Amino acid sequence: MTQSFDPDSPTFKIHEGGKLTVRSTLPLTDSDALSMAYTPGVAEVSAAIAADESLAAKYTWRSRLVAVVSDGTAVLGLGDIGPAAALPVMEGKSALFEQFAGVNSVPIVLSTTDTEEIIDTIVRIAPSFGGINLEDISAPRCFEIERRLRDLLPIPVFPDDQHGTAIVVLAALRNAAVITGRTLADLRVVVSGAGAAGVACTKILLAAGIGDIAVADSRGVMQPGRTDLNPIKAELAAQSNRAGLTGSLEDALVGADVFLGVSAGEVGEAAVAAMADRSIIFALANPTPEVHPEVAHRHAAVVATGRSDYPNQINNVLAFPGVFAGAFDAGARQITENMKLAAAEAIGGVVATELRPDYIVPAPFDQRVAPAVRAAVAAQAKIDGVCG
Amino acid sequence: MTQSFDPDSPTFKIHEGGKLTVRSTLPLTDSDALSMAYTPGVAEVSAAIAADESLAAKYTWRSRLVAVVSDGTAVLGLGDIGPAAALPVMEGKSALFEQFAGVNSVPIVLSTTDTEEIIDTIVRIAPSFGGINLEDISAPRCFEIERRLRDLLPIPVFPDDQHGTAIVVLAALRNAAVITGRTLADLRVVVSGAGAAGVACTKILLAAGIGDIAVADSRGVMQPGRTDLNPIKAELAAQSNRAGLTGSLEDALVGADVFLGVSAGEVGEAAVAAMADRSIIFALANPTPEVHPEVAHRHAAVVATGRSDYPNQINNVLAFPGVFAGAFDAGARQITENMKLAAAEAIGGVVATELRPDYIVPAPFDQRVAPAVRAAVAAQAKIDGVCG
Repeated sequence: MTQSFDPDSPTFKIHEGGKLTVRSTLPLTDSDALSMAYTPGVAEVSAAIAADESLAAKYTWRSRLVAVVSDGTAVLGLGDIGPAAALPVMEGKSALFEQFAGVNSVPIVLSTTDTEEIIDTIVRIAPSFGGINLEDISAPRCFEIERRLRDLLPIPVFPDDQHGTAIVVLAALRNAAVITGRTLADLRVVVSGAGAAGVACTKILLAAGIGDIAVADSRGVMQPGRTDLNPIKAELAAQSNRAGLTGSLEDALVGADVFLGVSAGEVGEAAVAAMADRSIIFALANPTPEVHPEVAHRHAAVVATGRSDYPNQINNVLAFPGVFAGAFDAGARQITENMKLAAAEAIGGVVATELRPDYIVPAPFDQRVAPAVRAAVAAQAKIDGVCG
Repeated sequence: MTQSFDPDSPTFKIHEGGKLTVRSTLPLTDSDALSMAYTPGVAEVSAAIAADESLAAKYTWRSRLVAVVSDGTAVLGLGDIGPAAALPVMEGKSALFEQFAGVNSVPIVLSTTDTEEIIDTIVRIAPSFGGINLEDISAPRCFEIERRLRDLLPIPVFPDDQHGTAIVVLAALRNAAVITGRTLADLRVVVSGAGAAGVACTKILLAAGIGDIAVADSRGVMQPGRTDLNPIKAELAAQSNRAGLTGSLEDALVGADVFLGVSAGEVGEAAVAAMADRSIIFALANPTPEVHPEVAHRHAAVVATGRSDYPNQINNVLAFPGVFAGAFDAGARQITENMKLAAAEAIGGVVATELRPDYIVPAPFDQRVAPAVRAAVAAQAKIDGVCG
């Protein structure tokens, strides 16, 4: 893609100087203001927090601040491009946090890809933040890093590239089921891709009561008989595929209700044609969907992609700004499974009375979404007892 | 100080919610904007940086972003209060960066006080930033951390609590010398305090050509015969005290031209009275100067403090915003000794034609200061060949 570097193009122009700014919320224009906001006044505030750390939530910005952390190993379609090249993406993420839900965040890109070093580093800088958004860290390290940090830190740790996508997929799939006259429990789903997003989507669909779900990687369907699986995939094989399918992705698609593509692997038209009647195709690879939307429409009742130039865009901007805003509102120490399910329900609910085959999820700029997600996540956090 | 916790006081009121906000510099209100600032457009920018990392300076915010890093071990007059309690101070510092020189910065407070862990952590997050402002890390760890990070990182590393104070002290002392009819080379200085600020002040005064300087800690004057000195103090003893003084701080003050207090230790009036005629007293301890200003004025020609309610306030806000702004303007990889000397000269120069005994440094809100420091530091960086 480097041949597309054109410094005069609008895209490069708008990225000049980066996309974020940090401002003081107080005007410090005279010595009275300075004496209160900085020395000597600030010493009173610091002394109060030293005596009772819970006051930091009220008197610092950390309780409303997210760190968007990446090591740059799995960035968009680009892969392992390193921290400097990942930074424009993380700045974009921070810009979305602010523009969609008023959430403050700071990109932190790391010069290490070592699992232990990443964990140590995030733990050491964690007192600066109220939440950690992990982003574009390659599998399987991302799973270990999330699991360990959730145990180590008293603040939400949320890998948006996994769970944000999963939340929006669930929201869309529930509405697609309604449109095709089914429930989630009726659906047999085949997932293509067992990376970060595939694992997270499978887990949330299982938690939401999906009928059955089989996951295929490049070597075929996951099932306990396979001997080539890493621990994460072996766990997935044990939890999924109740039907005991074996063989290729194409084999599994015969008669399936739903195709969920979260890898770049292309799927031929014959395999799509062999799915059940009124099938549902979510082909989320970007920029090239696993099934071309025109092909998909010849065989499926509902089609979704990750692209903004087709209807039904599965865009995780529908999820993450409201998820963190709601967690912050509630003072949540973590993002529970129920909070993710509540977020999905809120996203789907926004368009529940307007459903059409080409309108199963809200558009990214639907201003009803972030407040709905925020409220649902905050309410669920209180129900789950993870606040304060 | 905890008894002063009054949530209804103006000081606590203005700290509610913290003092900073992160904003997008782009409005992301439609899908065209989103497509350029985030996917798919941002991938072009990331790919370009992956091919040529130097483009990160132009297309991310890091080249204009400072990390204000502290472990909370030496905060204002409070000491080792930990990261959460240090955060209001670091937020204040970031607010000052923005308000005084338009420099973006982010407070990073650390949950470790281990020298190696602090160094590792800063190195790992460094790709996110264009400069590191170390703050309120206790001596002697602060010296080792600064030295190692300067070697490891290709960006400016500047402990403001040391060098910022030292720069302003030098600016003020040069003007105080002028007013009392001397040059820096004429002056015999006695420093009380061999902590972070004392060491940095001594070094910059030596670099600026001071006549002689003796440093005293709580056990008396540093000289090579002392066997109780840590390596930092031993180095200081070797570099200073050409006159070979021994004994107490009070002994050293007999006939001295300048007293520079950067510890909290009180100095009696008799010792001040024994100094040379037309002496210069900088009593910088906060909130209680080592010599009360009224006492100092009975014996000295020029008096400065760290307090905003007396004339001649030695406030490092005169230095650090312009120092980083100038380093960023020049694309400097480090802050050299010459850049610090240039900053001091610029600060002192702002008031050179208006000097009075009670006006040897500009006021903190003098809007001429930051631009003058910025220009001087950027120019010196180019002369020193540390850019790009």
